[in-house]
Amino acid sequence: MLRRTVLFVSDGTGITASALGKLLEHFPSTQFTQVRLPFTDTLDKIELAQSAIKRATDEDGGRPVVIMSLGNVDLRNKLKQANAYFIDLFNTFIDPLGLELDQKPLTGAGIAHSVMGSNYHERMEAINFTLGHDDGMTNSGLDEAQVILIGVSRCGKTPTSIYLAMQFGIKAANYPLIPEDFERGTLPEVLYKHIDKIFGLTIKAERLHSVRSERRPDSFYASLDNCRKEIATAEDLMRKNNITWADSTSRSIEELSAIILQKIRQPAK
Amino acid sequence: MLRRTVLFVSDGTGITASALGKLLEHFPSTQFTQVRLPFTDTLDKIELAQSAIKRATDEDGGRPVVIMSLGNVDLRNKLKQANAYFIDLFNTFIDPLGLELDQKPLTGAGIAHSVMGSNYHERMEAINFTLGHDDGMTNSGLDEAQVILIGVSRCGKTPTSIYLAMQFGIKAANYPLIPEDFERGTLPEVLYKHIDKIFGLTIKAERLHSVRSERRPDSFYASLDNCRKEIATAEDLMRKNNITWADSTSRSIEELSAIILQKIRQPAK
Repeated sequence: MLRRTVLFVSDGTGITASALGKLLEHFPSTQFTQVRLPFTDTLDKIELAQSAIKRATDEDGGRPVVIMSLGNVDLRNKLKQANAYFIDLFNTFIDPLGLELDQKPLTGAGIAHSVMGSNYHERMEAINFTLGHDDGMTNSGLDEAQVILIGVSRCGKTPTSIYLAMQFGIKAANYPLIPEDFERGTLPEVLYKHIDKIFGLTIKAERLHSVRSERRPDSFYASLDNCRKEIATAEDLMRKNNITWADSTSRSIEELSAIILQKIRQPAK
Repeated sequence: MLRRTVLFVSDGTGITASALGKLLEHFPSTQFTQVRLPFTDTLDKIELAQSAIKRATDEDGGRPVVIMSLGNVDLRNKLKQANAYFIDLFNTFIDPLGLELDQKPLTGAGIAHSVMGSNYHERMEAINFTLGHDDGMTNSGLDEAQVILIGVSRCGKTPTSIYLAMQFGIKAANYPLIPEDFERGTLPEVLYKHIDKIFGLTIKAERLHSVRSERRPDSFYASLDNCRKEIATAEDLMRKNNITWADSTSRSIEELSAIILQKIRQPAK
């Protein structure tokens, strides 16, 4: 297997640059070592980056990929004296975009992820809301929720809610469906007046059994039979109430969130 | 103020494409409307995207920016028949990177954010760990933590911990410093054996006062005077124990996380 190092060199957090690192998943037959060099904003630090490039080349037997986001032109040019395959976010994106918009881009360090960012405070508020409305812990404030995820215990509601809040500033509450609900055959009463905001998650019984068994091995709760029954009843409940749902078994929280966003951003019918 | 729409068109979640949207912060004098079109993986959906492009052009009085990630070449070419400024992740990054690596990239839909991604399960485990070790809720399992954030109540420990877990797969516990600790003049006892993993957060008193006042207005807890005293004592405690800390007042959780990662990834001295 081919080995290559990818260095993310940024004068800020390096988060935008390393988001592009996800594109490396398109090359599964190369084993990438990812190295982040944030706050690289002086000539000295550029020299350290150059040494890292050289070291990686020696270790891998091939030049590294450098994904770089440096506002300062001198630092940019200096770094490029090293031997690497450079992807320069300024050259490739920001400068051409400036021509398109007929505007000079800001070139200060760390602009993309400062607290001044356009929706930073919205995102922080959403995180607070979501943590305070995890696992049905309160019924108050549900009016404020933009989405309420429901589903059986351990089907992925919490990480998906937090991702929606952190990434998109969505106030996402979540509510478990529990044995009492299944016996009664109705959703928790408080949810009916928010029915338009509800999105369901479901999961395959085998997977739920394995997830629950990690926490409570050999319990009734984790048994395959109980998982099957809970899931079937939860799906019945959702069907009966016309709730859209998605299966979390083979979907990442990013994929689930993208599906949920599509649903909640559609105008109500 | 110039108005432009940015469309993120992807055959997957669109998350990699929209991460590049952060680069728009470099153009503060344009007001961008961001529209995500995930799962655009058929000709019909490409046509919907083309209509959205046209509509945005009419509304803004200028052609939109389209950041696109489409594995299928036919869909890619079809979309580009619309009049927009295109940033094509395949043309710009993935295909040239394939030449550099001498490998054909995978072109299936949604490769970047599937559960098959290289560290997905590590990230999910980290989120579970972090949620289970928020706010000093348990002392068990701290051996497993990769970092333990400490600081006064409401200084930003929780969102930073969750970001570290979600984005980087770091198991981040956090522990509040509370009046009992200040009276005793020592850190919580349990933390001393993990002192190498501790990172401190601090905050300006005025900001803390304002954050706490939202929750408990006019309380002693939120009073400026108490905030000042708690912060001074917490900083004293951290200084006495040689704990590195960062001020969260004007830093985003992304910036704090980048700082913390730099610290914890340095080899111990």
